[in-house]
Amino acid sequence: MRDFVIIAHKALTTGDFSLNDMPGAAGRMDILCRCINSSLFLSHDLRRDVQVHLVLLGEPEPGKIVRFDGEHIRYLNPDERSAGSLIKKALQKTAGEWETRSTPGVFIKKGGLDTLLTEFREEGRKFIYLHEDGEDIREVSDLTDDAVFILGDHVGVTEEEEQMINEQGAQTISLGPIPLHADHCIILINNEIDRTMAEKVQ
Amino acid sequence: MRDFVIIAHKALTTGDFSLNDMPGAAGRMDILCRCINSSLFLSHDLRRDVQVHLVLLGEPEPGKIVRFDGEHIRYLNPDERSAGSLIKKALQKTAGEWETRSTPGVFIKKGGLDTLLTEFREEGRKFIYLHEDGEDIREVSDLTDDAVFILGDHVGVTEEEEQMINEQGAQTISLGPIPLHADHCIILINNEIDRTMAEKVQ
Repeated sequence: MRDFVIIAHKALTTGDFSLNDMPGAAGRMDILCRCINSSLFLSHDLRRDVQVHLVLLGEPEPGKIVRFDGEHIRYLNPDERSAGSLIKKALQKTAGEWETRSTPGVFIKKGGLDTLLTEFREEGRKFIYLHEDGEDIREVSDLTDDAVFILGDHVGVTEEEEQMINEQGAQTISLGPIPLHADHCIILINNEIDRTMAEKVQ
Repeated sequence: MRDFVIIAHKALTTGDFSLNDMPGAAGRMDILCRCINSSLFLSHDLRRDVQVHLVLLGEPEPGKIVRFDGEHIRYLNPDERSAGSLIKKALQKTAGEWETRSTPGVFIKKGGLDTLLTEFREEGRKFIYLHEDGEDIREVSDLTDDAVFILGDHVGVTEEEEQMINEQGAQTISLGPIPLHADHCIILINNEIDRTMAEKVQ
């Protein structure tokens, strides 16, 4: 299982936003929609072994986690409105301590980055933090198919968040010479793992 | 200058489509919007040396080319609706044999794949055709910053189009072990060229 965690500092935590204004009033919800697409879509197929965790920190109830599970997801098309519609439906559910399923393969609960870090640590998972100062992904000798990748949104990752991530012993990696959007980073990560796994099979 | 040509077999050639239904009634216009994003956006910047040429072959007037010029583009945000809105404005202009500017950095004219191939050949440009059977991009020894990359949409590239492309002596390259969406391919191409150019500078 490959997991992508996207920290969305401004994304609304209510389902009453308009699909026609996701970059504005919804707090850059468009970024999250593109991250869903980048994480899960193949040509005429889906990445069944990938999960995406959106950490929503905007108003009115900061601290909700929407999870997209590639194995069970349904009703998801590649366009932004499609992902946005599923996020909206999830946010219309009451978020509690335990996950609630809103549509097949989409779940919501209360929580923040710390919640996810704790859960994944208990599973013994390896964390990879994407940052332009990190080691080049092509130089990483032990790239596996079961890491947890952590990415920031358009405002990046705060110092406090970075400290939390580093306390988990996260490996910091970069993807090339030029800083890129989170959804573009995910494409590059998926491709690098595709290549690594294909080489192992040979 | 780097150029991306996207062949859109179903994309409408009229500007009266709804931004709320780009995957449906507009003939998978959403794919083109994502290709614009992948081609032009950097984190907090734009790729000024990139142009995108959308070859629209849908009804009611098949054969229009919308060009996005990274150097002069304005009013473009990363979300699909933003690119869709600029395509729509371009399609509301009358397309003639010569380009008309609809908004800064966006142009429209009549034409098809053959039009672009002829123009680029006259400029002495190198063509690269993206196909899963091609040479791995990481093995290409002479990857340059000034090639013309040709990609198909969700239905791929027809036999007739492929023949036209091959007649130009296009190099066929692939991007990894798994077939991907056109917009995902563009991210991988841009990253590979970023890396190649950064190595040359060093």
